[in-house]
Amino acid sequence: MTRLDDAIAELAGFNDDPAAGGITREVYTRTYAAALERVAGWMEEAGLAVRLDAVGNLFGRWDGAEPDAPLVLTGSHVDTTLNPGRYDGVAGVLGAIEAVRLLRADGLAPRRPVELVAWAGEEPRFGTGCVGSRAAAGALRRSDLDALRDRDGVSMAAALRDAGFDPDRLGDAALGPRTVHALVELHIEQGAVLESSGDEIGVVTAIAAPHDLTLVLRGAATHAGATPMGLRRDALTGAAEVVLAVERIARASASATTVGTVGVVRARPGAVNVVPGEVELDLDVRDSDAGARRAVVDGILAFAADAAVRRGLQLDVVGIVEDAPVACSPAVIAAVEAAAAEIGARAGRMISGAYHDAMILGARVPIGMIFVPSAGGISHHPDEFTGSADLDRGVRVLAGTLARLAA
Amino acid sequence: MTRLDDAIAELAGFNDDPAAGGITREVYTRTYAAALERVAGWMEEAGLAVRLDAVGNLFGRWDGAEPDAPLVLTGSHVDTTLNPGRYDGVAGVLGAIEAVRLLRADGLAPRRPVELVAWAGEEPRFGTGCVGSRAAAGALRRSDLDALRDRDGVSMAAALRDAGFDPDRLGDAALGPRTVHALVELHIEQGAVLESSGDEIGVVTAIAAPHDLTLVLRGAATHAGATPMGLRRDALTGAAEVVLAVERIARASASATTVGTVGVVRARPGAVNVVPGEVELDLDVRDSDAGARRAVVDGILAFAADAAVRRGLQLDVVGIVEDAPVACSPAVIAAVEAAAAEIGARAGRMISGAYHDAMILGARVPIGMIFVPSAGGISHHPDEFTGSADLDRGVRVLAGTLARLAA
Repeated sequence: MTRLDDAIAELAGFNDDPAAGGITREVYTRTYAAALERVAGWMEEAGLAVRLDAVGNLFGRWDGAEPDAPLVLTGSHVDTTLNPGRYDGVAGVLGAIEAVRLLRADGLAPRRPVELVAWAGEEPRFGTGCVGSRAAAGALRRSDLDALRDRDGVSMAAALRDAGFDPDRLGDAALGPRTVHALVELHIEQGAVLESSGDEIGVVTAIAAPHDLTLVLRGAATHAGATPMGLRRDALTGAAEVVLAVERIARASASATTVGTVGVVRARPGAVNVVPGEVELDLDVRDSDAGARRAVVDGILAFAADAAVRRGLQLDVVGIVEDAPVACSPAVIAAVEAAAAEIGARAGRMISGAYHDAMILGARVPIGMIFVPSAGGISHHPDEFTGSADLDRGVRVLAGTLARLAA
Repeated sequence: MTRLDDAIAELAGFNDDPAAGGITREVYTRTYAAALERVAGWMEEAGLAVRLDAVGNLFGRWDGAEPDAPLVLTGSHVDTTLNPGRYDGVAGVLGAIEAVRLLRADGLAPRRPVELVAWAGEEPRFGTGCVGSRAAAGALRRSDLDALRDRDGVSMAAALRDAGFDPDRLGDAALGPRTVHALVELHIEQGAVLESSGDEIGVVTAIAAPHDLTLVLRGAATHAGATPMGLRRDALTGAAEVVLAVERIARASASATTVGTVGVVRARPGAVNVVPGEVELDLDVRDSDAGARRAVVDGILAFAADAAVRRGLQLDVVGIVEDAPVACSPAVIAAVEAAAAEIGARAGRMISGAYHDAMILGARVPIGMIFVPSAGGISHHPDEFTGSADLDRGVRVLAGTLARLAA
């Protein structure tokens, strides 16, 4: 066990549902505030000057020789979804503290300031994720804080007030784009690309963004016993064709990194003796190549429209989100690759299929990401795991990257 | 509006959830007891001697010239599921009262006693349907009354006690098989076979029975963005193949009346950004031909096992129910056809895909059923509808059938 492992284990103790086997620590809860206070303590021990911004993003600053120079930002998040493991986000926050300790121990004196950050609310407690980094990017309006609500109907504004923040000061959280030289985020991969390729470090070249849609198919909810096969308008068999088309069309994409997923299916009325009359599918298509993503979405919608006509179903399509993919900065990519080469780590370029706080900032400042392997590609699950050696390697690559970017 | 329409409309007023647009009148509730009392009143007005048995089955007796001869039984049920229409079951109870009025008006003096019945709990308030007719068939044990529970956890025994019955007297409800000469049930079709064939009366030759199974497919719940298409074990795409196979294999059955339906799909964890790691499908296969039904179930299970291996999924199969199909009595079928011919009704033979109280008794006594059309095949829905002319035709065919069977 390294010091980083110990810190990750200690932070895992801040948990609203330990009986479930994973960790539940949603943003703006008391448990989250207590965890953030512990992180602030570690930042102070590492010699950083700590501050909270207007929406609860926690910053720890290491001043550079030129304190007014655009700074180098690094960090991730320490909030969780419901009952995942202990590494998602946390590795990038506590790993950054460890990287600063290494650099200080090596006697580095950065030219630029280096700031560490724990972004508030990367996980979508309020439906939309990355609320802290969106506020920093100036991408949230005051009215959004009232509109965004959690599963209990609590608005983000009310949650902020309960946690001691003033939602009317939202604007204070915005970062001027010229104040940031570069942002780099260390994160677990949350997939099995590194495990499959044998690389130890993933050098992220672009962050794929989701295009999410709900497809609603409507047929006739008739009696499963009394309706012969030839007299049915079964919304679920139509939906099953669409699910398989999503897989087929995403695989056939001109871009090798396109993925297409149906993650949610709601079949109504949902009784064993009734032919489903209405099915909703929530569809997610992602790529770093927006054109390829568009072509796959178009292909799926054309197939679904044909299948609906063929089966006498009605099709409605409702948009959920269509974010823009972000390319990483060549300068940050080069710094990561140089840092990996320096320690002899096997590094491979890849895209990030998941989105991260870095993507939100990517429209305004140069960004990059460093991935370390996730055992079995498992994430958002209690079994999420990244070993000490992989974490240590990620920390050393992050340290080398920060040293280069801050020089 | 006929007198039967008026009675159906009046009974529809006994409703625990009128705001929902349909009718909610579950067995053993106060609303159900009040409705049953109204039905008993109509039976008495029609000259019948009324009694309730130990589980709340309501009988109305018209004595025959030979009061000890095995009797002719007819009826259906007046309980409902949650929020369906007003005809399911009710048409067969109030229609039987109307048939007796017609026969009395015609001066018929039956040789055999004729009994009308409103079976308790045809709809599955306690998970299992037809509890009243099962008690009459001697197919319920005292321990079942404690084990069967409704969605609020109330046992059938507790519900019986609340409604004024003694669950320990269950055995008193059993009908001796030699006491019943024949049973005939008038019912709405609940499908669109008659509408599609143009027949006015369905002469039921057999009642299909369900073989229900739950298929559980398990893969890996990985991140929808971070897991390339080639590294997935998506339980939902596997399940979609099975849904389409159910349709294909049921259509290809050696028996034209086989139907196969997936009515329930549960995909977990059920998030737009997570590949489904576990999917449960509730499968229903029915036919009056048990061999053809078995072959279709076997074909589906073989396909699912292959698909699971091909996709790296784990497959588990859990049985729900496997009831035996029941053939109708040739004597009852002949009586129904003769009665239909007598009034010039276009009658066609068909099977009942849905199961009914008659099926439960069918293992012990000769049975038959008379179907009238359901508009659009819609049932278990507020839009369920059968017009006056169709109801009237059904009542006259029932009257003619009773006259023949009771002679």
